Amino acid sequence: MASQIPNKNSSRPLSETFDDPLKTLSLESVRDNLVRIEDSIVFALIERSRFPLNSQAYDTSYLGNHKGHGGRSIAEFFVRETEVFEAKLGRYQNPEEVPFFADDLAFPIVPPYNYPQVLYPAAASVNVSKDIWDMYFKDLLPLFTSESDDGNYVSAAAADLVCLQALSRRIHYGRYVAEVKFRDAPQDYTPAIRAKDRDTLMKLLTFETVEEMVKRRVEKKAKVFGQDVTLDDKNNNTDPEGEPKYKVNPSVVAHLYSKWVMPLTKVVEVEYLLRRLD
Amino acid sequence: MASQIPNKNSSRPLSETFDDPLKTLSLESVRDNLVRIEDSIVFALIERSRFPLNSQAYDTSYLGNHKGHGGRSIAEFFVRETEVFEAKLGRYQNPEEVPFFADDLAFPIVPPYNYPQVLYPAAASVNVSKDIWDMYFKDLLPLFTSESDDGNYVSAAAADLVCLQALSRRIHYGRYVAEVKFRDAPQDYTPAIRAKDRDTLMKLLTFETVEEMVKRRVEKKAKVFGQDVTLDDKNNNTDPEGEPKYKVNPSVVAHLYSKWVMPLTKVVEVEYLLRRLD
Repeated sequence: MASQIPNKNSSRPLSETFDDPLKTLSLESVRDNLVRIEDSIVFALIERSRFPLNSQAYDTSYLGNHKGHGGRSIAEFFVRETEVFEAKLGRYQNPEEVPFFADDLAFPIVPPYNYPQVLYPAAASVNVSKDIWDMYFKDLLPLFTSESDDGNYVSAAAADLVCLQALSRRIHYGRYVAEVKFRDAPQDYTPAIRAKDRDTLMKLLTFETVEEMVKRRVEKKAKVFGQDVTLDDKNNNTDPEGEPKYKVNPSVVAHLYSKWVMPLTKVVEVEYLLRRLD
Repeated sequence: MASQIPNKNSSRPLSETFDDPLKTLSLESVRDNLVRIEDSIVFALIERSRFPLNSQAYDTSYLGNHKGHGGRSIAEFFVRETEVFEAKLGRYQNPEEVPFFADDLAFPIVPPYNYPQVLYPAAASVNVSKDIWDMYFKDLLPLFTSESDDGNYVSAAAADLVCLQALSRRIHYGRYVAEVKFRDAPQDYTPAIRAKDRDTLMKLLTFETVEEMVKRRVEKKAKVFGQDVTLDDKNNNTDPEGEPKYKVNPSVVAHLYSKWVMPLTKVVEVEYLLRRLD
C-alpha cells in the first residue's frame, strides 16, 4: 500500500512527497515559498545598501577597450560571467532557476539531477528577465542607494546579482502559482485562455486585499530586518525627529512590491496560462 | 584652511574624511563596521539555510573527469572562478577584501581606484583564509543545515561564498582593529611586539566582557532576523513546546562567534602587530 512507503519527512502528507511530481505542488507550499522569498529580497536589498550607487559599475565605457567584456558594464559582465559557470555547474537544470542571459550559456558538465517537473512544458519558458533587469537598474537601485561612489564596484555588482536572482526567483515563481491555480480550477481559466483574453485572466488573478497584505508585510520585514539591533533595545539610529532609521526605507520595499514585483508576477501568470492549453 | 574644504558628508568630523588616509580610521568607525558585518553574517547564514547540506557540492569526485575544474568540488570551483573574474574587475585592489585563492588571480583590467591605505604595509598581508575555509566547511556548515539533498548545489555554493566573504571580511578586519589600537597606544604594544610575545599580545587584545556582549548580540540578531515576520505578530513557526523556531539556531551563531570568529580575529590582530614594527 502506498501509505506504508517510508516517508522521510513524516510530518508531511504523503501526497506532497516527491514520488509523484504532479503532487508536489500545493497552493500552501507555493505561498510559503513566496513568503520566504520576501525575506531573501529584503536581506539582499539591505546588503546592497551597504554601498552607495557606484554608478561607474553601470557605465559601459568604464572597462575601456579591454578584451573579453564586449563593451559591457562591470555589473553586466559580472552577471554574465557568473551565469556562464553556474550553467556549466548545472544551476539552470532546476526549472525554478531562470538566467538573465540565456543566450550565452554552456552545457552543464554535471550529472543530471531529477528535479520535480511540475510546470507545463509549453508554458515553462515564460520569461520576463529583461523587464526585471531594466526595473532593477533604472528604477529601483537609485531609490535605496545614496548617489555617491566608494570604489567597491565589484562588491556592489555581486550584491546586485543577489538582488536580481531573488527578484527573478519570486517573479518567475508566478509560473508555479499559475500552474497550481489552473490545476485547482481549470474550468475558471479555460474560456479566457481559449479566447486569449489577457484582461479577464488578469482580473481572475488579482486579489486586492491579498496584495495590500503582502505590501504591508514586506514593509514590516524591512523594518524588522533593517533595524539596528542592540542588546538594550535602545535604538541609537534615529533621524533628527527621533524616528527610527532603517537600512532600506520600508516604503521603498512596499513600493517595489506594489509597483513591480506583484504586477510582473501576474504578467508571468497570465503569459503562462495563455500557453497552458497549447 | 583645511576646515573650510567642502565636506560632502557634513555630519562627519573633518578628521574622518578621506583627504588624509591616516585619519580615516577611528576605534568608533571600526566598531561600527564590525557591528554592521554581524548583520551580513547572520543574513548570509539564514540564506544558506534555505538549502540542506547538499554534500555533493563538496565532493571532489562529483564533477568527474571534466576538464577545467582540476579535481575540485563544485563549491571550490565556484569560489575560485568567482574570485578570478572579481580580481580581473578590481575587487582585491581594495585592501579590505581578501581572496581565498590568491594564487590564481588575474591582473585587474580596471583603472586603479584610490582606496584609503591605512594598513601598515609590512603587516597588511596577514591572512587566515585557509582557517576560515576549513572552519566553515568542516565545522560550521553541518551545524545549521539539515543533512539531506535537494540538488541545488550551485545555489548552495553561491550562498556559501556569501557566508565565506562576510566571515573573511569580519575576521580580516582584525588588521584594522590592530592598526587603530596600535596607533592609539603604541607604548602598550611595543615591548611585546619586540619580544615576539604572542601570549602577552593576546592578553592585551582580550576583553571578556566585550566578547560576551558581542556573543549575546549576534544571538539576538539571529532571533530578530531569523523569525517568521507576520502582520499580526503571531508566530506560527514554533516547536512542539510552543517555543519560537528560527531559521538558523541562535545558539549556533553565538557559538560561531565565541569559538571561531572572535578567536580568529584576534589571531589576525596578533599576527598583524607582530609585523607592525618591521
